[in-house]
Amino acid sequence: MKIGLDIMGGDYAPKAAVLGAIEACKVLSPNQKLVLIGDRDIAEDILKQNNADQACFEFVHTTEVIGMGEHPTKAIVQKPNSSISLGFKMLKEGQLQAFSSAGNTGAMLVGGMFSVKTIPGVVRPAMTTIVPKLKGGLGILLDVGANADCKPDNLLQFGILGSLLAESVYNIQTPRVALMNIGEEEEKGNLLTQATYPLMKDTNLLNFVGNIEGRDLFSDGFDVAVCDGFTGNVILKLAESFYVITLKKGFKDEFLDKFNYEQYGGSPILGLNAPVVVGHGISNPEAIKNMVLLAKNMVESNLIEKIKQAFH
Amino acid sequence: MKIGLDIMGGDYAPKAAVLGAIEACKVLSPNQKLVLIGDRDIAEDILKQNNADQACFEFVHTTEVIGMGEHPTKAIVQKPNSSISLGFKMLKEGQLQAFSSAGNTGAMLVGGMFSVKTIPGVVRPAMTTIVPKLKGGLGILLDVGANADCKPDNLLQFGILGSLLAESVYNIQTPRVALMNIGEEEEKGNLLTQATYPLMKDTNLLNFVGNIEGRDLFSDGFDVAVCDGFTGNVILKLAESFYVITLKKGFKDEFLDKFNYEQYGGSPILGLNAPVVVGHGISNPEAIKNMVLLAKNMVESNLIEKIKQAFH
Repeated sequence: MKIGLDIMGGDYAPKAAVLGAIEACKVLSPNQKLVLIGDRDIAEDILKQNNADQACFEFVHTTEVIGMGEHPTKAIVQKPNSSISLGFKMLKEGQLQAFSSAGNTGAMLVGGMFSVKTIPGVVRPAMTTIVPKLKGGLGILLDVGANADCKPDNLLQFGILGSLLAESVYNIQTPRVALMNIGEEEEKGNLLTQATYPLMKDTNLLNFVGNIEGRDLFSDGFDVAVCDGFTGNVILKLAESFYVITLKKGFKDEFLDKFNYEQYGGSPILGLNAPVVVGHGISNPEAIKNMVLLAKNMVESNLIEKIKQAFH
Repeated sequence: MKIGLDIMGGDYAPKAAVLGAIEACKVLSPNQKLVLIGDRDIAEDILKQNNADQACFEFVHTTEVIGMGEHPTKAIVQKPNSSISLGFKMLKEGQLQAFSSAGNTGAMLVGGMFSVKTIPGVVRPAMTTIVPKLKGGLGILLDVGANADCKPDNLLQFGILGSLLAESVYNIQTPRVALMNIGEEEEKGNLLTQATYPLMKDTNLLNFVGNIEGRDLFSDGFDVAVCDGFTGNVILKLAESFYVITLKKGFKDEFLDKFNYEQYGGSPILGLNAPVVVGHGISNPEAIKNMVLLAKNMVESNLIEKIKQAFH
């Protein structure tokens, strides 16, 4: 298995990315390689400085980068030699089994849709985030930003995608799928959620448990929470800000610790024809390591094939 | 001035409502009366038990209640003698200058729109909530649930309504109005926020400062944050849940203390032809007291007249 890692992506690239790669390598099997895509000279310097086992790594050299603020579609089209573009080219050609980056999220989404493309039957890929639960364990929230405007069909599909991720990668059996809404009753909500509820209730493609509200995000009542990407992005960033506030104020707590994005490694983009993971821009080596391991888990759990079968 | 208080509304009614009324009376002027609408016998018992000054109170007796779970429109139509219906009848007839309740929020909204009606020019009334700021002070978020689906015009009007509330009741000069979005740049967002941004940028009816994101909710960069009622309701309930979690975990902090809804008293419904405040269902006497005082401040600041002029 070869996992591609964009070492030019993220606020602390390339150093954090290469250091994270070194840590990831320590837990990979001998037949699992990391392909570092970016400035090879810098990468090899960092590996040497850290006495890293070179056998784990392959290199694809480029110095072209898609910046965090660049327009995704323009950048993907205009920078074919950027680390992200090269990663997707290799993923499409089967030289990589997964690709991960803490770089420009939009470019990762667009790059994935342009190269490996969306799985037939999936209308729109979705981005996920992990939500810690007060009673322990975790939930999955999606979409958190890939699709600002959604239709009921999209939300139904997000429920299926999230279920397969929960089952395959997080070992949650028959995941309970909830609809993020503004009331518990079926008739509550905006036009989108009102139209989505009956679709979710009537399908046998997922295990629907009804509406949840903002206050239920950390509750034990669901495994997968579905919303449009606008709502999900607001939720994600608001939850992050709470965590940052509690950190700054010095509050220590087992539950709050689980908000630390580092341990989850990144957000899978679900619905593409290959495993793709996007890391947080501020990823440190620990986060990069876990992003790579998440990509590995997506390959090993055969998630993409399961999604293809579900949408066949 | 006569302020109507529904003593049948709220999870701890009528006791919490009457006890809150007693506390409010202690800070009202002699010419300011509280009209307690609900079960007069119970109210008088509670007043006597607490040796309350009866001169502050007037009574409108009814035992009919709109329950928290009732369908708002049906309940308002079918229960003309409910405490909420009677309050709005008096408000419409000028027997009250403001009306407040911790009861069924939807019924308060529908009751207001049916009785005193929406101010000419205002397309949809909005519900607000107070957002504490990390650096001190507060912001206003609207809409938090009155309008699950919004058009750009609605959001523009919410900005104007929120500005007038901030200025009149919270003494914030030239309030900075921000659009809740999923990116800082003008072109970011869903169809709604993308269409709203230029409207807000081009108007001289409010002081637009651009987009904010979920992570900026407690920042110092705005005074009024505008969003559709679906997004606002999810934000409100998520923020409440964080506060509840920190409370349960015993974290103490000046900033977190400001999340306590009790001190804000309730949510004004903006855009109606009279001051109307809805309290939290779980309102205790302190919250009820502050709800009444907020209603008083809305009357004294002449907020409704200012809104009428702005939309003239």
